[in-house]
Amino acid sequence: MAEVLVLLARGFEEIEAVTVIDVLRRAGVHVTAMAVEEREVSGSRGVVVVADAILAAVKDDSFDLVYLPGGLESMERLAADPRIGDLLRRHLEGGGKIAAICASTFALHAHGLLPDGARITSHPSVSEDLKSYRYLEDRVVVDGPIITSRGPGTAMELALVLAEILAGSAEREALENAMLTRGDAP
Amino acid sequence: MAEVLVLLARGFEEIEAVTVIDVLRRAGVHVTAMAVEEREVSGSRGVVVVADAILAAVKDDSFDLVYLPGGLESMERLAADPRIGDLLRRHLEGGGKIAAICASTFALHAHGLLPDGARITSHPSVSEDLKSYRYLEDRVVVDGPIITSRGPGTAMELALVLAEILAGSAEREALENAMLTRGDAP
Repeated sequence: MAEVLVLLARGFEEIEAVTVIDVLRRAGVHVTAMAVEEREVSGSRGVVVVADAILAAVKDDSFDLVYLPGGLESMERLAADPRIGDLLRRHLEGGGKIAAICASTFALHAHGLLPDGARITSHPSVSEDLKSYRYLEDRVVVDGPIITSRGPGTAMELALVLAEILAGSAEREALENAMLTRGDAP
Repeated sequence: MAEVLVLLARGFEEIEAVTVIDVLRRAGVHVTAMAVEEREVSGSRGVVVVADAILAAVKDDSFDLVYLPGGLESMERLAADPRIGDLLRRHLEGGGKIAAICASTFALHAHGLLPDGARITSHPSVSEDLKSYRYLEDRVVVDGPIITSRGPGTAMELALVLAEILAGSAEREALENAMLTRGDAP
């Protein structure tokens, strides 16, 4: 079973966090929603989530993918936290994948994790600071181990891409049918 | 400011609940996420949300709209709870609107709240029990005070329709741009 770690810092964007957690669990992926600070984490629109774990308990575990939801305050906390930089660097060096959405692409940049010429996207509000990379306006961009996306309105598309990467295209197809993601679904 | 009550029972579908709460708060709507049982509510995929209030504290307040997220277990709890039937009946009689998604359309039927000939939709898995109404396969159906939708993949569309009803079309347009809901957004 694939293992995914989701980083929840105060101010995380709720749709971006919950959509990926929910869809990946539907796909049979084991997802750990980890609080960076306190175990009860308040999102950007005041939804309070009780995390599955705290940083100290999982920092030495290994995961197939680490996901950073957006939210400006959350991104700033993730970007400023050297423990998060260390965790992500070790994870990448160990062959793991990283997904980031919305403002959080900037946290990957702040920790020096994006190689020169990386193909990325982000929320338009932080795009100016990321123009040194190959910045795309696609809704989901996959470049090797780095997967980026744009905002709450692209969270479902990101979740489905991650489900396909971690659980296969047949699983993605089944999820799309069950969740009615497409305008032409039954 | 418009007032919305969201009913959280154990097993609520997380994407359906959080997408509507988040988008309506972005639209300036005052949203109360209310726990039907315990204040910490576990969703269908294990995301635990701390509700803003419990039923006893808000049952006599008035709201512009009451929203029932889906999730099979949650729907069964909402459908079996006479306090919820009473709350919804008084709300409708007072001129309030009700929105339900996924399996929860069935809870409205179980409480006898759907008029004969009502135009509705739901998750396909409960559609057989709702065929006595004018059952549609549209992604969001508005019929007077009753607004219904289909599943996690239609939650954003429902949230935007509710934002437009409660906060106007200019607000909806601004939200769509900020959240990148459309493939052709900047």
